[in-house]
Amino acid sequence: MNKLTRRTMLAGATALTAAALAPAMMPMPARAAAPMAGKQAAGFYRYKVGDFEINVVTDGAATFPLPDQFVQNHPKAEAQKALAAAFQPTETVTVPFTPIVVNTGPKFVLIDTGYGPEMHAKTKGRVGQLPANLAAAGIDPKSIDTVIISHMHQDHVFGLRTADGGLAFPNAEILVPALDWAYWMSDAEMNKLPEGYTKSVYPGIRKTFTGLENKVTKYEWGKEIIPGFTTIATPGHTPGHTSFVVASGSAKIFVQSDVTNIPHLFLRNPTWQVMYDVDPLKAAETRKKFYDMASAEKALIQGFHFPFPSAGYVEKDGNNYRLIPITWNPVI
Amino acid sequence: MNKLTRRTMLAGATALTAAALAPAMMPMPARAAAPMAGKQAAGFYRYKVGDFEINVVTDGAATFPLPDQFVQNHPKAEAQKALAAAFQPTETVTVPFTPIVVNTGPKFVLIDTGYGPEMHAKTKGRVGQLPANLAAAGIDPKSIDTVIISHMHQDHVFGLRTADGGLAFPNAEILVPALDWAYWMSDAEMNKLPEGYTKSVYPGIRKTFTGLENKVTKYEWGKEIIPGFTTIATPGHTPGHTSFVVASGSAKIFVQSDVTNIPHLFLRNPTWQVMYDVDPLKAAETRKKFYDMASAEKALIQGFHFPFPSAGYVEKDGNNYRLIPITWNPVI
Repeated sequence: MNKLTRRTMLAGATALTAAALAPAMMPMPARAAAPMAGKQAAGFYRYKVGDFEINVVTDGAATFPLPDQFVQNHPKAEAQKALAAAFQPTETVTVPFTPIVVNTGPKFVLIDTGYGPEMHAKTKGRVGQLPANLAAAGIDPKSIDTVIISHMHQDHVFGLRTADGGLAFPNAEILVPALDWAYWMSDAEMNKLPEGYTKSVYPGIRKTFTGLENKVTKYEWGKEIIPGFTTIATPGHTPGHTSFVVASGSAKIFVQSDVTNIPHLFLRNPTWQVMYDVDPLKAAETRKKFYDMASAEKALIQGFHFPFPSAGYVEKDGNNYRLIPITWNPVI
Repeated sequence: MNKLTRRTMLAGATALTAAALAPAMMPMPARAAAPMAGKQAAGFYRYKVGDFEINVVTDGAATFPLPDQFVQNHPKAEAQKALAAAFQPTETVTVPFTPIVVNTGPKFVLIDTGYGPEMHAKTKGRVGQLPANLAAAGIDPKSIDTVIISHMHQDHVFGLRTADGGLAFPNAEILVPALDWAYWMSDAEMNKLPEGYTKSVYPGIRKTFTGLENKVTKYEWGKEIIPGFTTIATPGHTPGHTSFVVASGSAKIFVQSDVTNIPHLFLRNPTWQVMYDVDPLKAAETRKKFYDMASAEKALIQGFHFPFPSAGYVEKDGNNYRLIPITWNPVI
């Protein structure tokens, strides 16, 4: 019987290890590693409102370093605390963009268009996903009958244009809020502005609509602008910012547009002002009025900047609110 | 000049109406009504945990009249109040079922299998959606290397079988909790039971595993059963009910399995006992321990009965908890 010494044990261990490793060094007829998909599922979701079929279709989401003044009227540290409480990263902020297509039966109606092809390229596909997700949902852009613009900010309108400057929805009537048109298409308004966010986005917005002056139809508040779609005045974020009641039979939803930016900051804290508001105090007043109504009515809200599928109910919590997202329905 | 009388006006109005209606009565070369899609988007969602790619793949959801004893230890009216507070219907309850497939690189690992083909047919496709959603996610059932069963209830195991009784994942090793195997495969245990839910589900569970006695591998708690997958004892719902830490590098998630049934009832009210618990008091004790840990660690929890994509964080709220769902990421 061999006497085991530390030395022979180590030698044995080494030999064993080498033998054990040998097969790994020779190619073996084993199953290939499972390939990673590396991409997300197509971002669309459907639900019914009466006879209407709502297609929620994400345009993607932007993630960027949290600006110091993302919440205009509170220190960055407070915003970070709110992000942490929502289990979000605190050094960046992520803003989703979520148009919807309503199939009314007679018509396909798109509300807001997302960021379009130029921003799709610039962000390496993080935004400007609407065309790809429409395709996944089986919706041909040529079949869109009406495009309703809630307000004329770039994330809602750039997608009106194709990469070559043509019309992304060539057969659609384009409806815009009259007050936003008057504001954003006016040299006088632009020249009045101080340097800052709003002035910086004017040229891109103007460029999108230049040449469409005789094509767009301007709408007012408090009207049924097409059957089933009634405009609601929700000004502040922009002068003509508009929300909608979309109703079929006795069923309805509120499409809030940008009554709030991301809910874990600005719905949770409705007096907080996002840096993109043209009139932040009026926006905060609108927000309170809108969510008091929504929570009292237990209304379903579709929100452009809510996390996909971007629909939920609003629970009142003292002077604040909490978004209760809808539960995904695997059938419709 | 004609004298307008009420009679001629009415005649005129009638004539006008008839003329206006005429086009509707004749087929017109108009755009066809937009066809309703009538079906939901494929239910899968991806995220990364270290080098692992998690594919959350829904098996669907069951909606049924709220049983009087759905919450065993509280009156139906209290359950209805909690459902209403979560903006859910109060006469029915909806329970989602959500297996996951983890791509570890070398392996595809499925945790739980959903309801399978027989229940798919019986429910007209509301459950048993896993095979279709796997296909949509590009995952071939033949490529699954390992199936881990968290516990042996039917919604977790029936999907092991194809419609003809074959193996749905023919190349997979099947891992089951040793304590559940001992419980559910035992005539003595079955015969001890009073009439009720647990006894009623025994035969189907037995049938699923009959013939697999030499194929399944039984696992214990507190072990890394395959690289990256460590079992956690979470008994009560069933004797061998198991949760998992799935870890890659420094990243990890907790796959809770059925520590709670639907969160708006039983995570919100952790002492409430769902009618399916084998040992409801132990299940409640497990729930408190698990969510105290999860909320303290700010851990991401993947939950079989959470609304799709069935992942979120747990916020402590006094003696109760609140689920904060993850925000859908349009890229991964």
